[in-house]
Parts: sequence; structure tokens; C-alpha cells
Amino acid sequence: MTGISSTVTGGVTAPSGFRASGISAGIKANGNLDLALLVSDRAATAAAVFTTNKAQAAPVLVSREHLNGGAVRAIIVNSGCANACTGDEGLRHAVDMAAATARLVPCSPFEVLVASTGVIGVGLPIEKIQNALPHAFEALGADQGPQAARAIMTTDLFPKEAATQIAIGGGTVTIGGMAKGAGMIEPMMATMLGFVTTDAAVPKALLDRALREAVNLTFNAITVDGECSTNDCVMLLANGASEVTIGEASYRAFTDGLTAVCRELSLGIVRGGEGATKLVTVNVTGAASSDEARKAAKAIANSPLVKTAIHGGDPNWGRLIAVAGRAGVAFELSRAAVTIGSIVLFKDGRPYDEAAPQAAEYLKGKDLTVSVDLGSGHARSTVWTCDLSAEYVRINADYRT
Amino acid sequence: MTGISSTVTGGVTAPSGFRASGISAGIKANGNLDLALLVSDRAATAAAVFTTNKAQAAPVLVSREHLNGGAVRAIIVNSGCANACTGDEGLRHAVDMAAATARLVPCSPFEVLVASTGVIGVGLPIEKIQNALPHAFEALGADQGPQAARAIMTTDLFPKEAATQIAIGGGTVTIGGMAKGAGMIEPMMATMLGFVTTDAAVPKALLDRALREAVNLTFNAITVDGECSTNDCVMLLANGASEVTIGEASYRAFTDGLTAVCRELSLGIVRGGEGATKLVTVNVTGAASSDEARKAAKAIANSPLVKTAIHGGDPNWGRLIAVAGRAGVAFELSRAAVTIGSIVLFKDGRPYDEAAPQAAEYLKGKDLTVSVDLGSGHARSTVWTCDLSAEYVRINADYRT
Repeated sequence: MTGISSTVTGGVTAPSGFRASGISAGIKANGNLDLALLVSDRAATAAAVFTTNKAQAAPVLVSREHLNGGAVRAIIVNSGCANACTGDEGLRHAVDMAAATARLVPCSPFEVLVASTGVIGVGLPIEKIQNALPHAFEALGADQGPQAARAIMTTDLFPKEAATQIAIGGGTVTIGGMAKGAGMIEPMMATMLGFVTTDAAVPKALLDRALREAVNLTFNAITVDGECSTNDCVMLLANGASEVTIGEASYRAFTDGLTAVCRELSLGIVRGGEGATKLVTVNVTGAASSDEARKAAKAIANSPLVKTAIHGGDPNWGRLIAVAGRAGVAFELSRAAVTIGSIVLFKDGRPYDEAAPQAAEYLKGKDLTVSVDLGSGHARSTVWTCDLSAEYVRINADYRT
Repeated sequence: MTGISSTVTGGVTAPSGFRASGISAGIKANGNLDLALLVSDRAATAAAVFTTNKAQAAPVLVSREHLNGGAVRAIIVNSGCANACTGDEGLRHAVDMAAATARLVPCSPFEVLVASTGVIGVGLPIEKIQNALPHAFEALGADQGPQAARAIMTTDLFPKEAATQIAIGGGTVTIGGMAKGAGMIEPMMATMLGFVTTDAAVPKALLDRALREAVNLTFNAITVDGECSTNDCVMLLANGASEVTIGEASYRAFTDGLTAVCRELSLGIVRGGEGATKLVTVNVTGAASSDEARKAAKAIANSPLVKTAIHGGDPNWGRLIAVAGRAGVAFELSRAAVTIGSIVLFKDGRPYDEAAPQAAEYLKGKDLTVSVDLGSGHARSTVWTCDLSAEYVRINADYRT
């Protein structure tokens, strides 16, 4: 029965042996939850992917280093302050945040990963975090995943959680996760904050491989505004509490389950993108290579003219062609095609404008697919994005005021 | 006295020997001007740069071909319909548009360049243009440049014209031009429509060189929304009516004058960008190469988070650092700097937030400069952009409705 998976409720505490909490440390002026703690009852194997932005935040630098140390017992995350571009002081704060957490687990500071999200360039109020940490430990519970998912939110409209169970080798493995958006989203190797747990035992090399594969198809295939942040990371902990060990034979089943959890979290980030009112699946086919397919899909998914047309429910396929033509990939206008939903609007070098009213009706939906065939080969790629609304502008013009 | 230039009023009819007109041919449903005609009284040497978009509009394909023919007598331009992605019929319409114009000049069809701008994928109403052409010729005048500049507008808020005079070799040369924006603006080798005239006599090779040099520093250095259109072109006609011939000795003076005219037109396009309320000069310094400087400047100039922050008057320098860090160029956070106006907000790896209120005050202006030093070399680049407002979304969500 290996490989049969089913979606279950919950997030990072759905797998056995993980406890979490989400509390208010007073970092956010409005008193909302802003400190999330995740603890594994036993040492967990860990894998992570981090932002490729060259301005890496202090917690990214510290977590990278700690990840080299091997096992992980806890992850501590604050929202309301990114601790990015904060110089040597920021680095010390990130180290202190891990150390203070380690004292309470208790474990080595190198067994703690840290993450921060919020405004760039503002100093981390480390005393507030140090003072709040004992309360975060008191609040730990195997049912507190939802609180943790709330505590990592910034401009997110709703918390993002997902979990799945897979039957493997006579046992059952659970994978759960939480993530946050909502702007500065176009992960280049990772995404904004994502945390995934599993009670499977997974050797480090397999865990790394599974995470990279899953992230490439999910977190790395979404965009809200084409902006790769200074703090992006996805962390995956495997604590083995299920007594099921993943090997090459069960790798596919495990990775498919992991991908399903990551996809649900990723799509949640896009659905909750700043100002988003629609989730848009962008399919590119007929590309000369997979890289070109991804490149064209990203260009379409980030085009302000495409995103505003979709926001307005306008089946303006000419904008899709124009973006494909400027995307820097092989493109043959005479063999290209544009399909909105299943409605062909451009093919064989000519418009099918008689279908425009039907396409306009389709675009009133909330979950849309647009497809562009580049007419240049057989490779394909799927990317997810959202529409661009005046609300995005409002949120980001006033973010700090 | 070679090389002393002065700005003069007018546009494409400021140089001697050019007449223009702008009329309504009924292409735009609202009856606004939509057909512009430019005629040189004698055969003019011509140079042009066209969009690098692979989905090239029919008028671009036809003008490219005609340009190979040598001299040019007239340019015919319609707004309200881009004649792009319109297949073989669109090509025939563009050819017919040139031919009908040629019959009235009269001249060879190959001495006529054509351009169109408006919605992509809509068939050109060629009969309306053919019927209106005699009226366009009747309306021709050496004082009608402003009417032509209005007739090429789509969502432009105001017409863009510029002209300059240069004393060269005892004579005076005049250069004039007109351009239109206002969305789908990030020219990759050319821009949306730009038309420049001069009464200098300029050998073809020198004219090509001068246009490429001027365009690289002006039309190719602006962006409104990062979208390179299917119809971009800049056309330059030199008819020699001033009896001054440009050679290597006067090349610099001529090209500087041409660059000044192109810069004024380019900045007009940005100032009049869809929804724009501010003109933003983006300076990137400390880059490892000129290409990297341009790449980083373009990334900053197209960042929705930077553009919305500037719209909101928020000196959110962290977003500038984040974009520089993800731009795919050499970047050293510890040596980088962000300056808004002349106010340093980040340098030597640390924020200068005490200057934020002063920067916020500066950002209330309409003509702004933001500078980012990448800390990685000595190359620099300047790019111009505008802010991103809710009005941009409104215009483009409702463009065809």
C-alpha cells in the first residue's frame, strides 16, 4: 500500500513528535501574534533552501551556518521585523535569538534555526524576544500549529497550513507545513518563510534531494510581484517519530507527498498575495526547452499588463502574445496560440475574437488558467500568479506609514 | 561656433522642409485625432530602430522593408489600432496604407514608412484610413506638428514634442521630434512611437550611428512598466533643407543635439506614463560593468515595490537594497549605499534612519532621484521611470471595456 496519500487537517504539528506555539512578543505595535516556536521532541534531520538574494538577512546567514551542524531541535521565527540590512548588530541578534531558544529546549545553539520577516532595515527588538521566549515554551502544544501559522504572518490575509499522510512500508508517515507571503514574492531558490515537518526518518541526502525537487515545482514556481526577498527560506525537519524510514524505494511516494504539501502552501501564498483577487495558473507549452518554458511563464506571470487585464476580466490575449514575444525565448508567431480556460483566442496567426465574450465570462471566476503555446518546441512549464489590483498599490504605498 | 545648441519650440515641423497634419479618420470611437501624416518636401535620408519583440506588428515588418529602399518622403501613423498579430490581412493593410499615402505624395510606396499604435489583435480599418488620407494631405502644414503629435496619442495624457537648434559650420541645423507612450513601455532596442526630423543633410551611415547612440541613452533608458511592445519604433528623417551637411567633424554636435531631443521626448513619455505622478531618475553606481549597472537600474526602475513606495512617499530604502541584491549583478552589501535625493539612508552596512523624515519630505516632490551604489566597481548607468499608482491598474484593467 506504499504511496497512497490523503490530505489531513493541520500543519507543522500534524506529524508526531512536534509541538509549536504562537504568541505576542510585542514586536508588532498592534499586539498581534509575532513569535512562533517549533520544537521537535527528538533531534530531527534538517534540510533547507534559502534566498539567492545577495542582500541576505542575518537570520538567513545564521540558519545556513547552523544547518551545517547536523540535527535540529527547534525553529524560532518572528514577524514584524526582517532583521535584514542590520549589519553586525543584526547578526548578533540572530545568534542571540538562537542561543536563548537553545537554553530553554535545552540543546546546542547550533540545533536551532532562526527566521525573521517584516520591514527591512529595522533593528530587531531582541530583548522583547528574549523576554517572551519562556512564554512561547509554556504555550507549546501538539495542537498549536495553527497559532504558529498565525504568528509568522505579516500582510497575509489568512494563515497557510497543509498536511498529508502517506502509507509507506506498513506504516504511516505524516508531512505538515506552514508558510507566509504576501508581498516581495518571487522566490529564486526558495520562498518567503515556509516550514515543513515530517515524522518520517529520512537520511540527510535524501531529505535534501526531496526538498529541492518539491520546492522547484512549488515555491519556486509562484510569483506575486516578481520580487525575491532578503529573507526567503523553506525549512524541512524529519524527526523519525513514525518509526518509518524513507529509502530509495519509498523516495517517490515521500517526495510526492512533500510536493503536495508544498504546493498547497505555495498556492495559499499566491491566493493570499497582496491585493490578489484571483489565482492564475500560467501554462506555457511549445517551448524550445524547460528553462525557456519557465522563463516565458515567469515573464507572463509578472507582467503588469497581463495581471491588470485579468484583474479587469479582460480577455486581452494580445498582451500575452506581446510578453511571450519579449521574454527572450524562441517564439514563432505563426505557430503560437493563446488559450484562456479552454477557449482559444489566437491560433494559426489569427485572432478568434468571436470567442472573446465567452472568455470574458470565464475570467469572472476566481481560479483561472491561461495557456500560451510558443510554437517552438515541446517543453512546458507551469507557474502560479495572482492578478494586480489597486489594493496592491495601496498596501505597498502605505506599508510603513 | 559649432555645437552651440538651444532648445526651440515645436516638434517634427520645426526643421525646414517638413509638413505634418493630424486628423480624425474615425478609427477611435470617440472621434479624437487618430491619423498623423509627416511629409518631407524632398527625399530624406532615413534611419530607424524597431522593437526586439518577436511578435512584430505588421507596420514594423513593412517599415523595416521600406527602410532598406533608401530615401523616405513620408511617414503615415495611426493610433487606436496596433495592427499587431493580425496575420496576412494585417500585412496587406500595412502595405496598402503605405501605397495609398505614396499615391498622394506622390512617390514610390517604398519611400513611405508606416506605424500603428493601439490595441493588439484588432484588424486595421483600412478603408477609413484610405478615405481620410486626402484630408490628411489637405491639412498638411509647416505649423501642424502639434496636431500630428496629438494624433499619435493613445492613453497619453499630453503630447510629447521637442526641438533644438545647433550652429554647425556657419549654418544652423534644427532637429525636432514627437513621441507617444504611455503603457507597455520598456523599449529593448527602440521604444513606442518616436519620430524625429532634421533639416541637416546626414549620410546614411552617420545617421544610423547617431540614432543608435542617442536612443541607447534615452528611449532605451526609460521604463514605465517593463513591457516591450510589438510596435516600438523610432524613425529619424534628415532632408538636408538647411544646406548643412554633417560629417565626422560635426558628428558630436549633431548627435548631442539629437540626444537632447530624444531625451526630452523620452522623459515626456515617462512623465506621462500610465497613472504616473512622479518622474524618477534611477542612478546606479559602483557596478562591475556598464551592462550590470544598466541591468540593476532597470530592475530597480521596474520593481513594483520600489515604485509603490515612491508613490506613497515612503523612503523605504530596504526595497532598493533588496532589488539590487536580486538583480543578478555583483553586489556587496557591506560596501553598498542608498541615497534618496542627496540624503544617505544606508551606507557602510548600516541604516541612517535619522534621515528618514527628511527623505520623506523630499519624496513629496514630482521630480525625484534615487541612487544605489552596488559597492562592486566603477561603472554607472541612469534609467528613468515613474511611480506605480492605483490609476495604472484602473487604466489597464479597463483598457478595452
